[in-house]
Amino acid sequence: MRIVTWKKEMQKLAKECQRKGKSIGFVPTMGYLHEGHVTLVKEARNHNDVVVMSIFVNPLQFGPEEDFEAYPRDPERDKQLAEEAGVDILFMPDAEEMYHHKPAMKMTVSRKTNILCGVNRPGHFDGVVTVLAKLFHLTLPDRAYFGLKDAQQFAVVASLVDDLDFPVELVPVETVREPSGLAVSSRNVNLTKEEKKQAPAIYKGLQKAKELIEQGENNIEVITRSVKEYMEEHMDAEIDYVELLSFPELERIPEPTGTMMIAAAVKFSQTRLIDNIMIKR
Amino acid sequence: MRIVTWKKEMQKLAKECQRKGKSIGFVPTMGYLHEGHVTLVKEARNHNDVVVMSIFVNPLQFGPEEDFEAYPRDPERDKQLAEEAGVDILFMPDAEEMYHHKPAMKMTVSRKTNILCGVNRPGHFDGVVTVLAKLFHLTLPDRAYFGLKDAQQFAVVASLVDDLDFPVELVPVETVREPSGLAVSSRNVNLTKEEKKQAPAIYKGLQKAKELIEQGENNIEVITRSVKEYMEEHMDAEIDYVELLSFPELERIPEPTGTMMIAAAVKFSQTRLIDNIMIKR
Repeated sequence: MRIVTWKKEMQKLAKECQRKGKSIGFVPTMGYLHEGHVTLVKEARNHNDVVVMSIFVNPLQFGPEEDFEAYPRDPERDKQLAEEAGVDILFMPDAEEMYHHKPAMKMTVSRKTNILCGVNRPGHFDGVVTVLAKLFHLTLPDRAYFGLKDAQQFAVVASLVDDLDFPVELVPVETVREPSGLAVSSRNVNLTKEEKKQAPAIYKGLQKAKELIEQGENNIEVITRSVKEYMEEHMDAEIDYVELLSFPELERIPEPTGTMMIAAAVKFSQTRLIDNIMIKR
Repeated sequence: MRIVTWKKEMQKLAKECQRKGKSIGFVPTMGYLHEGHVTLVKEARNHNDVVVMSIFVNPLQFGPEEDFEAYPRDPERDKQLAEEAGVDILFMPDAEEMYHHKPAMKMTVSRKTNILCGVNRPGHFDGVVTVLAKLFHLTLPDRAYFGLKDAQQFAVVASLVDDLDFPVELVPVETVREPSGLAVSSRNVNLTKEEKKQAPAIYKGLQKAKELIEQGENNIEVITRSVKEYMEEHMDAEIDYVELLSFPELERIPEPTGTMMIAAAVKFSQTRLIDNIMIKR
């Protein structure tokens, strides 16, 4: 596995792959790798000649009150896990390298962002699309792999790619869960022992919604309220939101129909977790 | 020469070129081709395996009061000229194909744009960078060729490429001039016969600035005023601006030094022309 920290070197390597007719699969991450990332790499490994992973905790997508500093980091362990997973090129630039001067260009996202995580994280998705536009240009992927745990991010990145005609195919990958049902996340390490025991109630709560819809419940307010109540009963945490939306449009719907997503964000003492499940009817 | 009107087909062709290790030179235009464009194609031809030209009058970069409708068009003549010049792939999408739905993504340029053509054309450069981001993703150039007649556009596109790490080398190409000194432009066809006779005074006026600076004049106000006076004397036209700026920063400078650009925009009865020359001291 080759480790690259300079943008120019990364882009040159990617161009060389292209010129040799090798397909590139790209897995963007913020590091502190876990089983979810390994699954993304395996998917990329199965369908591409070369697998590039980036590890970059992007300051642009964190608000001033958010956990940029507290975001867990362990580059040495990450290198080992990436290599074991089958990464060919690991791109680990620092913030100075990625944003070497104040940009003249600003990218903003005006849809799919006034809801869910967009409400309490103003500018978050602007930061996400900006760094991904840069990373796509540096790693030149044929396919890019995203976990569906952050389904809103996937939907926003789909808009980025579609609106600006990026030559990349986005591949959504199922959320990886612990046996308890808790979605695997780098942020789980910031849960206390007690919170870790409670957190599977997020997934169980979301499944309540699925059951209700399957049982024929049509009132979205009833569905989301019962999810919230379940979560509040089983966790000492603040429920940021529970929303049932169309996917990938991320719009509120009058009643459950088509492809939908029920999504939740929950604030524990030291960290905020998100999760969702897809529902079809 | 292959003519392509669909985005997906263009991108597929470009990807095939990449995979075969062929370099792509790209010449973006708004059509109504002239000697200036032919020069860009020749440059591209000399340094790349495949030359792609786009012809697209981009509605996004025209204001509501501007000459989008009046912009000259002659696709049949363009096809012939492009083929003669040595274009391999001519990409001619229509506006519906380029912008098939309302985008969620917005790109804005916050520097180099509150001056020159940016002052009276709000949103113009946002439209320019948006369409170029899309065209770069569709034609996947190794090198892209831009005439220096629109030096501000070149400077803004340089920011686009630099800020978002596009994998493309920008190649600036000298302005092509008629024997009279008038910069060749698609818009020249909208000059009346009398205006066509007067219009070379734009270039002659700009050269006044160069002479004054070479003679040691340090007062920028004196320099630009004498250019304006020369133009007003020799043309029945409204001078939109005459500015001496650092290049490529496009910033006002206290006195003439380094690499500079003197630029002018002039409104005739039916069209508005721009021109500039580079000056070093």
